[in-house]
Amino acid sequence: MLVDGRPYRSIWVEDDGYSVAIIDQTRLPFRFETVRLATLEDAARAIETMQVRGAPLIGATAAYGVCRALVDDPSDEGLDRAVERLRRTRPTAVNLAWALAEMVAAVRNRPRGERVDAAYARAAEIADADVETNRSIGRHGCRLIEAAAERKSGGRVNVLTHCNAGWLATVDWGTALAPIYMAHDSGIDVHVWADETRPRNQGAALTAWELGRHGVPHTVIADNAGGHLMQIGAVDLCIVGTDRTTACGDVANKIGTYLKALAAHDNGVPFYVALPHSTIDWSIEHGRDIPIEERDAEEVTHIWGQRDDGSVERVRIAAPGSPAANHAFDVTPARLVTGLITERGVCPASREGLLELYPERRGG
Amino acid sequence: MLVDGRPYRSIWVEDDGYSVAIIDQTRLPFRFETVRLATLEDAARAIETMQVRGAPLIGATAAYGVCRALVDDPSDEGLDRAVERLRRTRPTAVNLAWALAEMVAAVRNRPRGERVDAAYARAAEIADADVETNRSIGRHGCRLIEAAAERKSGGRVNVLTHCNAGWLATVDWGTALAPIYMAHDSGIDVHVWADETRPRNQGAALTAWELGRHGVPHTVIADNAGGHLMQIGAVDLCIVGTDRTTACGDVANKIGTYLKALAAHDNGVPFYVALPHSTIDWSIEHGRDIPIEERDAEEVTHIWGQRDDGSVERVRIAAPGSPAANHAFDVTPARLVTGLITERGVCPASREGLLELYPERRGG
Repeated sequence: MLVDGRPYRSIWVEDDGYSVAIIDQTRLPFRFETVRLATLEDAARAIETMQVRGAPLIGATAAYGVCRALVDDPSDEGLDRAVERLRRTRPTAVNLAWALAEMVAAVRNRPRGERVDAAYARAAEIADADVETNRSIGRHGCRLIEAAAERKSGGRVNVLTHCNAGWLATVDWGTALAPIYMAHDSGIDVHVWADETRPRNQGAALTAWELGRHGVPHTVIADNAGGHLMQIGAVDLCIVGTDRTTACGDVANKIGTYLKALAAHDNGVPFYVALPHSTIDWSIEHGRDIPIEERDAEEVTHIWGQRDDGSVERVRIAAPGSPAANHAFDVTPARLVTGLITERGVCPASREGLLELYPERRGG
Repeated sequence: MLVDGRPYRSIWVEDDGYSVAIIDQTRLPFRFETVRLATLEDAARAIETMQVRGAPLIGATAAYGVCRALVDDPSDEGLDRAVERLRRTRPTAVNLAWALAEMVAAVRNRPRGERVDAAYARAAEIADADVETNRSIGRHGCRLIEAAAERKSGGRVNVLTHCNAGWLATVDWGTALAPIYMAHDSGIDVHVWADETRPRNQGAALTAWELGRHGVPHTVIADNAGGHLMQIGAVDLCIVGTDRTTACGDVANKIGTYLKALAAHDNGVPFYVALPHSTIDWSIEHGRDIPIEERDAEEVTHIWGQRDDGSVERVRIAAPGSPAANHAFDVTPARLVTGLITERGVCPASREGLLELYPERRGG
């Protein structure tokens, strides 16, 4: 998407055809800095330190990490070492393991002299496929925003989102934000309520930043505010992303998503979840079986912010000595979800709804 | 309540019988400093700058402000000037106008020489009455926690609260926290989930601080986390305060309260609201008629925190250039409220429930 008029992806190969670059997301929203990933180790550290985050982008970064490793050492040992190093960066990310397996399959049976080119070609395919998936999600979701605009006779459509499921979390377009970018680019008057998404503030930092750079009208709100906004009719629909969706349509997403789904249900506001098929976990039926990560309590008691002199620093915001808890995700039951927006279309959040879109999953 | 073993109220007269002191709440949770209110102007500024906040404490501070004014000038003009100055500090606070009217009634018809003593006596009555009201709320609410402890065979009772309705918001005990202090002091194993309460963080700053100083086990959580905690059975009951309750039992409270009430309802967790009768607005039937204050957007985009060197500074946490909205309260409909805990007992959140406790409001 656009950053102040210039199109960007979250990861790209530079004009020399080999250098890989990313946006350092740990510097956002206060500084826009690109970083070159010159080596395997650069790519691995970029994932570990969350210079890149979001499952699809992690996968693409790992793929290009393999490319950089093969430039230095195209041997079988070099390939194995690269895969092992990258696999350790975020061991639970589904897309990471998938992307690494794809890269191994693409290069393993080739002579050394062809491996680098084959790797770059497959990494580009992985990145492009993510962009196409998200573009399809955007097209299907955009119709929902169009329909809302028609119901309002062209009046402004207000979409509430939580966390960051934008282009920064993918290679381009994003999942939850793809429909919004498409609606905006096609001239629909769409405005986004961006939940700040404590404790890591991905909404206030990343979603607000990327919407602002692309020129999409938006307003940052405390996570507490969404229910009130729905009560007073200021939200036309909600669209969020997901980290894992069960075979029955229960949705794990950033902590606090469930509260917004409850408020949407209570106020008759449609609540949509945008996802690529890769986040559907067909092996799990019920959301209660999804393990919920607990993260460092200091993410709650402290926060990063920018001082008046421009420096960025971490400050304590909770009472000294008070313990904190930090559950990173919650599960929104399918009964609260109006529909799932996938690259194949919009379906009810249910086993039958998902199987209509993914019939190859029937039986077996 | 206790601050590291020593009992405090939020406002008190010192041993000389005249000097009035408060805790500077703008310095909490990072510094515990008491401030002497030597003059009318000191009292007025303490309210304006939110060194004191919370409707009952504002009322008591105004009462003592009148006392200090009369020490300097016990004339009718001095009294009028004091009342006018204090009334301007927070023009919408209900308790402020009430306390000033009480002070005028107590001194107006007395000779000048008796006015100071009469004023101090009435101010002390106002402060003591608030403490007694809250003590009664605490007794009634404590039975709910006792019952939960019995259901858990003495196991730990987990109470979720939002914002600060503790002793810092009143003269002592608090409203929502009074039952918790009483349960704790009587030996019940009670633990509090303290919503941080963005954007002003009264939960992480004030509730966590006062619970910690009194020794009540507690854990600070992001506002997003409460729904998940209820889903996994980690919350036995919710108790919150309120800024205004309608005659039908709809409850205006700090933004985000409604979301927790929805989650409590969805998970079968009892949701109680603690309030003195003075916050019941018998003139309003429905919550939708309660005006909702919108505050400065910078409360959302910036936050106060403590740096490693101990200094306290405001930092920006949202993307530069992104606008923010800051609705300060929301309304929880009576249907989501299990009961109202008042100084006269616990009643259903309904017109009939309130009239059972306040029969003098019937008819008329």
